[in-house]
Amino acid sequence: MKIFIVGVGLIGGSLALDIKDAFKNAIIYGIDNNDKHLTKAKELHIIDEITTIEDVIDADIVIVSIPVNTSLKVIPEILNNVSDNCLVMDVGSTKTQICEIIKNHPKRRNFLATHPIAGTEFSGPSAALKKLYNGKTNIICEVEKTAFKLQEKALEIFSKLGMRIRYMDAKSHDKHIAYVSHLSHISSFMLGKTVIEKEKNERDIFDMAGSGFASTVRLAKSSPEMWTPIFEQNKENVIETLDEYIHNLKHFRELLKDNNFSEIHAEMKNTNHIKQILNGIQEITLL
Amino acid sequence: MKIFIVGVGLIGGSLALDIKDAFKNAIIYGIDNNDKHLTKAKELHIIDEITTIEDVIDADIVIVSIPVNTSLKVIPEILNNVSDNCLVMDVGSTKTQICEIIKNHPKRRNFLATHPIAGTEFSGPSAALKKLYNGKTNIICEVEKTAFKLQEKALEIFSKLGMRIRYMDAKSHDKHIAYVSHLSHISSFMLGKTVIEKEKNERDIFDMAGSGFASTVRLAKSSPEMWTPIFEQNKENVIETLDEYIHNLKHFRELLKDNNFSEIHAEMKNTNHIKQILNGIQEITLL
Repeated sequence: MKIFIVGVGLIGGSLALDIKDAFKNAIIYGIDNNDKHLTKAKELHIIDEITTIEDVIDADIVIVSIPVNTSLKVIPEILNNVSDNCLVMDVGSTKTQICEIIKNHPKRRNFLATHPIAGTEFSGPSAALKKLYNGKTNIICEVEKTAFKLQEKALEIFSKLGMRIRYMDAKSHDKHIAYVSHLSHISSFMLGKTVIEKEKNERDIFDMAGSGFASTVRLAKSSPEMWTPIFEQNKENVIETLDEYIHNLKHFRELLKDNNFSEIHAEMKNTNHIKQILNGIQEITLL
Repeated sequence: MKIFIVGVGLIGGSLALDIKDAFKNAIIYGIDNNDKHLTKAKELHIIDEITTIEDVIDADIVIVSIPVNTSLKVIPEILNNVSDNCLVMDVGSTKTQICEIIKNHPKRRNFLATHPIAGTEFSGPSAALKKLYNGKTNIICEVEKTAFKLQEKALEIFSKLGMRIRYMDAKSHDKHIAYVSHLSHISSFMLGKTVIEKEKNERDIFDMAGSGFASTVRLAKSSPEMWTPIFEQNKENVIETLDEYIHNLKHFRELLKDNNFSEIHAEMKNTNHIKQILNGIQEITLL
C-alpha cells in the first residue's frame, strides 16, 4: 500500500507514524516544498521515501496536510493525476472552500474531506507524535460525495488510529470550529501580545507567570503559516465569534467598572459549567 | 512547631502537605468556615487537628489562605491574638490592600505578605497536591516591614518547599500580576461563556473541541468565590489590562475585515516570541 503524505509536518508526520504502525504493508512517500523537512522526516523514519507530486499516479492513498490556502491549488492538481482507485484526503481546519473548489472535479469521488481534531502548538516533522489521534474526533464532511469503497478505506485507517468519526456538512463544520478552535487561537495570540507589549522586562513575565498563564497562552506558539490561511478562509465565521467574544469582555469590564461583583460572580459561576462539557477531553502538554 | 492553616483548600492544603513532609515536628491545625472541608482535610491527613480562630494564641505560624476580601477582616483579628513570636503569612493574589490595612497594626512586624505563584483550576481540600510549590516563584512584598527572625523562618519554609523568592513592592506586584494572571482568567472565562452561549447543543462542543480549546478555557473552571474578590481588589489594574486586550482583539478583527493577512501573519509571528519567554514554566495538567 503506497501512501503519499503531502506536507510532512506535525499533522502529516503524526499520521504517517501511526499508519506505519497499523499497516505493516504501508510504504510512506513524503512530499514537501521544504527540503529540510523531508530530510528530517526520513531521518526520523516518519517517511520511507522522498518523492515529488509528479509521482502521485502510483499512490493508493494521498493525504494532504499543508496550509489550507495551498490545499486549494494542490488538491485539484493531485486529483488530476491520481489513478481511479486512489483515495485523496485532506486534513485541514476549514472545509467549505476546499469542498466548493473540487465539487465539479471529474475525480470528486476520489476525495474525502476530513478534519482530525488533534494537534499541538508545535510544527514540523520533529513535532510529529505517535498516538496523537488516539481517542480523538475526526470530522468527515460530505461523505456521500466520496466513492463508497474509498471512504470505507479511510474509515478503516481512522478506526485503526483509534479515532471517533463524526459526519457534518462543510458549512456547519466551519461555523462550529470557529468557536471551539479558531477563536481560542485568536484569544491566546492576543493575550500573548497584550502581555508582551506591557511587560518589556521579560524577567518580570517569567518570574510571575504561572501554569495558568502558560496554559491560556499556549496556542500563541502556533504556526502563523498554518493559521493565517485558516483565518482567511473562515473569515466570516471568525469575525462573528470575535464580535461575541469582544462583546462579552466589554460587558465584564462594565460590570467591574460599576462594582457589580455579584453579577461578576454569577458570570463565572455559570461558565464553570464548562467543567462538565470538557470532561473527557484530554489536554496535551508538551512544555 | 504549631502551624495554623486558615482556609484548608487547594492552596492552604497543599502548603500543609509539604510542610508536614519537610518539618517532622510540625503539627498542623486547620481552621475553616466550611465544616465539610475541615472534616475532609482531616480525613486526607492534610491537617492533624481541627481548631478555631480563638486558639491562634498558641500558634508558631499562621498561614492565611482564604478569599482576599475575607483576609482583610481576618488577618487584623489574627494579629490581635497571636503571640509576639508568631509569624502570620497570607498567600493571596492581591497584595496592596492587605498591606495597606495592616500598615499601622501594632503587630505589623509579625506579618509577611506572600504570593506563591502556583495553583490549579480546582479548589477545596480534595484538590490539595504535594509538591505543588516545588520550582515555583514566591513573591514577597514589603519584606523590610517584617521582623528579621520571622521572615527568616518563612524563607526556611519556602526554601524547603523548593520555591524561588522574588521581592517586590505591593503596588508593582498587583500591576504585573494583573497581566500574567488576572487577565488570563478573564480571557478564559469569557471564552468559555462565548462558546457555551453559542453552542446550546453541548454534544457539538464536546465532539469538536480539542486539546487547544481545553487548554485555553481551563481557567474558566476556577472558583468564583476566590476570584470575585481578587478582581474587586485589583479593579483598576485589571480594567487597564482588559482595555489593552480588547483593543488588540479589535485591531485583529479590523485586519481580518480588511483582508490584511500579511499583517495578521506578522502579529502572530511576533507573538510566537512567547515561546522563549515561557520556556521553563511548567503547565500543570489535571484534566
